[in-house]
Amino acid sequence: MSTTDWLLPEADLALLLHDWLGLAELCERAPYAEHEPEDLDAVLGVARELALSHFAAHAARLDANEPTFDGERVHVLPEVGRAIRAHAEAGFVAAGIPEEHGGLGMPVLLTQAAAALFTGADASTAGYPMLTTGVANLLVSFGSPAQQARYLPALLEGRATGTMALSEPQAGSSLADLRTRAEPDGAGGYRLTGDKMWISGAEHELTDNIVNMVLARLPDAPPGTKGISLFVVPRYEVLEDGTRGPRNAVRISGLNHKLGYRGAVNTVLHFEGARAELLGPPHGGLACMFQMMNESRIAVGLGAGVLGIAGYRYSLAYARERRQGRALTQRDPASPQVPIIEHADVRRMLLCQKALSEGAVALSLYCARLVDDERSHPDASVRAESKALLDLLTPVAKAWPSQHTLRANEHAIQVLGGYGYTRDYPVERFYRDNRLNPIHEGTNGIQALDLLGRKVPRALGLALPALLRRMERTATQADGHELLAPLAARLRAAVDRTTQVTQVLLATGQQGQPERMLANASVYLDLFGHTVVAWLWLDLARVALERHPDTDLARGKLQAARYFFRWELPQAAGWAEILESLDPTCLDMQTDWF
Amino acid sequence: MSTTDWLLPEADLALLLHDWLGLAELCERAPYAEHEPEDLDAVLGVARELALSHFAAHAARLDANEPTFDGERVHVLPEVGRAIRAHAEAGFVAAGIPEEHGGLGMPVLLTQAAAALFTGADASTAGYPMLTTGVANLLVSFGSPAQQARYLPALLEGRATGTMALSEPQAGSSLADLRTRAEPDGAGGYRLTGDKMWISGAEHELTDNIVNMVLARLPDAPPGTKGISLFVVPRYEVLEDGTRGPRNAVRISGLNHKLGYRGAVNTVLHFEGARAELLGPPHGGLACMFQMMNESRIAVGLGAGVLGIAGYRYSLAYARERRQGRALTQRDPASPQVPIIEHADVRRMLLCQKALSEGAVALSLYCARLVDDERSHPDASVRAESKALLDLLTPVAKAWPSQHTLRANEHAIQVLGGYGYTRDYPVERFYRDNRLNPIHEGTNGIQALDLLGRKVPRALGLALPALLRRMERTATQADGHELLAPLAARLRAAVDRTTQVTQVLLATGQQGQPERMLANASVYLDLFGHTVVAWLWLDLARVALERHPDTDLARGKLQAARYFFRWELPQAAGWAEILESLDPTCLDMQTDWF
Repeated sequence: MSTTDWLLPEADLALLLHDWLGLAELCERAPYAEHEPEDLDAVLGVARELALSHFAAHAARLDANEPTFDGERVHVLPEVGRAIRAHAEAGFVAAGIPEEHGGLGMPVLLTQAAAALFTGADASTAGYPMLTTGVANLLVSFGSPAQQARYLPALLEGRATGTMALSEPQAGSSLADLRTRAEPDGAGGYRLTGDKMWISGAEHELTDNIVNMVLARLPDAPPGTKGISLFVVPRYEVLEDGTRGPRNAVRISGLNHKLGYRGAVNTVLHFEGARAELLGPPHGGLACMFQMMNESRIAVGLGAGVLGIAGYRYSLAYARERRQGRALTQRDPASPQVPIIEHADVRRMLLCQKALSEGAVALSLYCARLVDDERSHPDASVRAESKALLDLLTPVAKAWPSQHTLRANEHAIQVLGGYGYTRDYPVERFYRDNRLNPIHEGTNGIQALDLLGRKVPRALGLALPALLRRMERTATQADGHELLAPLAARLRAAVDRTTQVTQVLLATGQQGQPERMLANASVYLDLFGHTVVAWLWLDLARVALERHPDTDLARGKLQAARYFFRWELPQAAGWAEILESLDPTCLDMQTDWF
Repeated sequence: MSTTDWLLPEADLALLLHDWLGLAELCERAPYAEHEPEDLDAVLGVARELALSHFAAHAARLDANEPTFDGERVHVLPEVGRAIRAHAEAGFVAAGIPEEHGGLGMPVLLTQAAAALFTGADASTAGYPMLTTGVANLLVSFGSPAQQARYLPALLEGRATGTMALSEPQAGSSLADLRTRAEPDGAGGYRLTGDKMWISGAEHELTDNIVNMVLARLPDAPPGTKGISLFVVPRYEVLEDGTRGPRNAVRISGLNHKLGYRGAVNTVLHFEGARAELLGPPHGGLACMFQMMNESRIAVGLGAGVLGIAGYRYSLAYARERRQGRALTQRDPASPQVPIIEHADVRRMLLCQKALSEGAVALSLYCARLVDDERSHPDASVRAESKALLDLLTPVAKAWPSQHTLRANEHAIQVLGGYGYTRDYPVERFYRDNRLNPIHEGTNGIQALDLLGRKVPRALGLALPALLRRMERTATQADGHELLAPLAARLRAAVDRTTQVTQVLLATGQQGQPERMLANASVYLDLFGHTVVAWLWLDLARVALERHPDTDLARGKLQAARYFFRWELPQAAGWAEILESLDPTCLDMQTDWF
């Protein structure tokens, strides 16, 4: 079997965008009123073609030929450069940028759906435009008009790519410990000195220039995260007329050799008095950068979801073709072998992939819709509610998909058996690419602390009540469906249990025991995430049954929802018990006992 | 951090072998009476040194330099050949072979403990002697004296390696569909024609010869598994005087390029009228081969366990050194960063690795002890019971560790963060190597069908009652310990639940519904395996507390046991519900709904 079409199918995407998340309704709102839903479908059609021709087509070759550094230059497969240009020229960097900044002003829901196709086709290649878009968004939000004029056109037109440079060797998860220094150069600019780690896309010859967004400290910076500023540090300076100036003092010492994402240049980056411009307020850089970090976190979750989809679609196609074994009741060894999808255990592995991966994508696109609502909903209270919900859900949208679609990718390998273990088939690459997602953009452990330690306590007034209302609305709507009512009852039970557990944990924190409250934060994120995804699955299954009755599409969604409720959600009971009892097993374990 | 010592520590191995599994007691029995326990400890000391110097030392280099095929010859890193010879010369192929066949007649418990060190040091390299040992054991059990004389010395002395050749392109999991033909050559020998798939170690220049054990069909063979015979097919014929004769008609078409196990040559093998000798009875080959398959299954489980240990030990050492972040209550960003092992979430990931990996190794070595009891226990009823228990536990010993230590390896990567994702650190390799284990030697789906469809129904008379007795004995012994009594209660509950579920499933099968009975067999294996491992953890923690009171070793075992009971075992409740309700979700899912 040789196919490169493992993308989220058109019918699934249409169900998500149109039937479930109301893309047409968004098009009636002021910022998006220029777009017709049919035009956006055409845009997605272009994205799908480009994803297949310029991303998926070289994915295996790129994985087998990772970038090399000859001491002077980094060499990357030229197909990546062609993909970056084709993607930008088709308008996909500009798609979400407001028109007044040279963009196309499309809904985030649309741009994220397009990103799902590109990342699903090849995560390595898609990383370049993903970062470029985030950098462009930072310039739109925090750049001066001069900065916007200097950098945005090249980014939007595919002549430059972007990077985010946060981590340092001594400061991975702990941004408070950043040391890179920024000295004023006396002419309104700055000189940066320091080392950055794990920087994707920071060195290559694929485009004319690279625009690095870098966190550093000014001379008078207070210690910790309150003393961090954001700088634009281009690889080549940009002259007044927009042309490329001299090379900046940004150098790499080598490339990181990774398990996956092999097509993405990943570097240790040295700034040796590099020319830099301050973006946003002094010492206020972390708050600015959080815009890109939050976007990236949702993008990571979406990327995990579509890598899960990739493995699911590929192993599904394989299971329909590959013949092996017979029905349990067929004792005649001379009878023909059956397609392995006939075996219940293979169906289990496929259904699990479907439930986890499609659930993850649903969560990501739901968050995209929240961004659009925050920006464009006519009702200010809905805008505020959407912002608060997004804030609460961001760590979940990053961590849950990246944690659980890895299990999906494991199943994809297993469905292919020995073939799945070889590099001749893409499923092992999907796993290797996906394995980065629980690590980058804040490890899942960091996301869990963010959720339970910061987001949930802040959400008591607005976001949590809103979330509970939305969940109950879904349950109420499902009550009327004979097929869905049992799932609605299970959802209510899960929501109640999660709420109880949350109260116990918050009370523990308020009693001055933050270590006990947060000791099992990762389990809390799992519990919270499973409850949220169960809710989304119920809502999605309802919409599928209502809008597409008596179709295989709707039957499949219903069965996947059932799988999630019957096979996945029961795990939450065990997690709730660990959390409610403030289980001290991990906290009590002493270093010397290991 | 640069260490290659990620082996199971000496203190852990001593606890398992001496305190828990009674190696000294074995040395009192007739077949092993020549060995003193201290001598065996010295043997393990040699194994540990060899494992570090000849296996772990080149593991990373071998992974990065996989075997190549130039159309004529296969090139493998020469360190592998040196390892094969050193391992055999130190007596480790001969170790478990009876003395009358030129072996050392050591307990299987000892040879498996040594194998744990070699495989843990480098799974790729250790695969060669592991297969060689299995082939030697087949010759001992089923070979004629002439065959034994022809092949055994070279295998035992490291001049030849062995392989097992079962799968074919159209027959991976379905051995009934094997097609390779064996024609009598008129002179007492046979000519083999056909293709074999996924054959490890079948082509290399590391040793003088390769002895392939091949399943094929005689001309008058009945269809299915009842028509399979076993043949010895050497790469070079062996002349009467034991010297190497002409090249046999065994050719490879190329190498498989795999996710892991990259140092192990893995081939598609063509037999083009290859000279072969029948081993064992005509049409009785599968039963013979099952000896090697069962040995291999337990070896796979053990290999998974020690790969889990490898990730655990490496990430533990890293977590003690790497400084990042601060205590939750430390708000001063100028205070020094703490070793990450201080963070509860890192302790969780380490403790989970410990509980899963050490539990897996305990299960494997427990099975090794069963083999010894089957062979050497003075009481015939214990011998029979041991054989029956081993038969029941074999699919669990293969599948459970390979399924669950992968989760441990995931945590090892996560503990190292971005570093864990690079090929500069071994933890991603441990995962890649380990990912084969749920696939080869019978996929875990096949093991689950074997357990629930064959082994459990056969175990009702002897093995299951014996298992329940042993579990209850452990619980009773634990009742007396204040620290262990709560775990004993949980064990009894888990055992009762598993027993109930088993009865429901068996009754379903008896009512003529094998598809419903077996639909969720994989979940049954998880449930059964978790119950068994919980039992072993309780027993091991008790022994540690009794024999090594007030030590960090015992405290660590107790805490790992607690982790298993509090964090892992509760999952079994959800699995039991799925099974007891004969959940039809996967069975009902239709191909067109995906």
